[in-house]
Amino acid sequence: MTNLTPDKLTLPKSPTLTKAVTRWRDAEASLWEDSLVVEEPLEIRIGGVSLIVVMRTPGHDFDLTAGFLYTEGLITSGDDIGAIAYCETGDAVDHQNIINVHLVNGAGLDQKSSWQRNFHANTSCGLCGKMTIDAVRQVVPPIQSDLRVERRVLYGLSDKLREAQAVFERTGGLHAAGLFTAQGDLLIAREDVGRHNAVDKAIGHALLMEYGALDAHILMVSGRASFEIVQKALFARTPIVAAVSAASTLAVELAGESGLTLIGFMRGKGMTVYSHPDRIC
Amino acid sequence: MTNLTPDKLTLPKSPTLTKAVTRWRDAEASLWEDSLVVEEPLEIRIGGVSLIVVMRTPGHDFDLTAGFLYTEGLITSGDDIGAIAYCETGDAVDHQNIINVHLVNGAGLDQKSSWQRNFHANTSCGLCGKMTIDAVRQVVPPIQSDLRVERRVLYGLSDKLREAQAVFERTGGLHAAGLFTAQGDLLIAREDVGRHNAVDKAIGHALLMEYGALDAHILMVSGRASFEIVQKALFARTPIVAAVSAASTLAVELAGESGLTLIGFMRGKGMTVYSHPDRIC
Repeated sequence: MTNLTPDKLTLPKSPTLTKAVTRWRDAEASLWEDSLVVEEPLEIRIGGVSLIVVMRTPGHDFDLTAGFLYTEGLITSGDDIGAIAYCETGDAVDHQNIINVHLVNGAGLDQKSSWQRNFHANTSCGLCGKMTIDAVRQVVPPIQSDLRVERRVLYGLSDKLREAQAVFERTGGLHAAGLFTAQGDLLIAREDVGRHNAVDKAIGHALLMEYGALDAHILMVSGRASFEIVQKALFARTPIVAAVSAASTLAVELAGESGLTLIGFMRGKGMTVYSHPDRIC
Repeated sequence: MTNLTPDKLTLPKSPTLTKAVTRWRDAEASLWEDSLVVEEPLEIRIGGVSLIVVMRTPGHDFDLTAGFLYTEGLITSGDDIGAIAYCETGDAVDHQNIINVHLVNGAGLDQKSSWQRNFHANTSCGLCGKMTIDAVRQVVPPIQSDLRVERRVLYGLSDKLREAQAVFERTGGLHAAGLFTAQGDLLIAREDVGRHNAVDKAIGHALLMEYGALDAHILMVSGRASFEIVQKALFARTPIVAAVSAASTLAVELAGESGLTLIGFMRGKGMTVYSHPDRIC
């Protein structure tokens, strides 16, 4: 049972802030109160030892942390997390920008060094995309799933994700990620200034809330599908990844070799299927 | 004089690749030859020692490398670079994914450790955006420039940048960055799967081609303006940064405290000025 310790002394940080800006429309300049998306550093520590600093939008920090550990292969289930809490030393309690994770079930520093090795795996001569894919595939097996999804379901996802985006409408500055069932029901949507963070927040939420396996689900992201997004979906065992914009070659190659259906340009009643199109009926 | 050693045995890698995809339009599925943006790892080494692996779109790799070293504060001028060459050991020559930089003028490992310290500077308790800004400002002074730019010039930039984007039209998958004069003339535009890489490629090109100081220039980026983009502009001493979409709070704070004019939502005859609006006339 994961022990989540929210900060008791301060309110959750807002994902947006209002700021006075100068708005120009043709020859007219006026002062305007604009809503900005908040970007702040978050440090993730394991057992008090610093793992990484990411720039993120505050909010759902525990989801982000759990999702990051899971989609980077540092933990293999939510049960590996004993506790997640904000750091309570010094000023940290005011800032809510440092999170400490207590891992159990033998997860811990070994995984950390393994992660760092993987992260820096490609430092030998001969670096190429194929080797990057091989490095990921050494850690996580391909997806074998006979999931089938109707095209009608897929065509509905981008509108549903957009509707769920609470902050984007105000700031125009956030990426979104959503987890859907094969019937097109939205399980969870999360937003962040970084697309990869939005993915980690959605997957981390499913992990901490014990939604169970995501192996009959669809991950949808705003914007583009990069290698990193497909890698995260692969660790989460999600067989279908859909993006509003284009996919990169390395994302398509990793998806193709790992049994993932990768979809891009999913807008209205149209989409481009880059790999494993047989899952769409 | 910088010695650039292009690979003599292989052609430059293409920034796009063609791949057969399944294209759905309503109930019709058809095979289609799609043009994908290439994403590949690039390792940057200094004197043979690995500094970082970035995911980038191949092309203008020397620009990217020089720009990265400059906008991260590892070098202070193009003269610090003695030579840039692709790694020629083993398979590397085929892959063009490892670059070795020979630094001169005393630049080198000291800068590397300093960079790593800065990169990981925020690991003490009390991490917050303000401290992140302070860490940057300890390394690079604020911009003091009496540059003035007409709003008409600014209104024309996004069309000019879009026109210069050769690859985007084909793939829909690339970010762009452009350097403009105060009269709105495009000096250089670069594209990449990562927005920060596009910025590094544009700035690095100006550095290697000895364009001189960029202190009367405008940096324009597609998409959003994050902390990282403003930080890079600050190191390059560009007084005005414009983005097609929104800016984050931390980007606005860093720009405000560092004397940079930050503009967002620059589309058609409209824009939002987040900091130092006095440079616009």
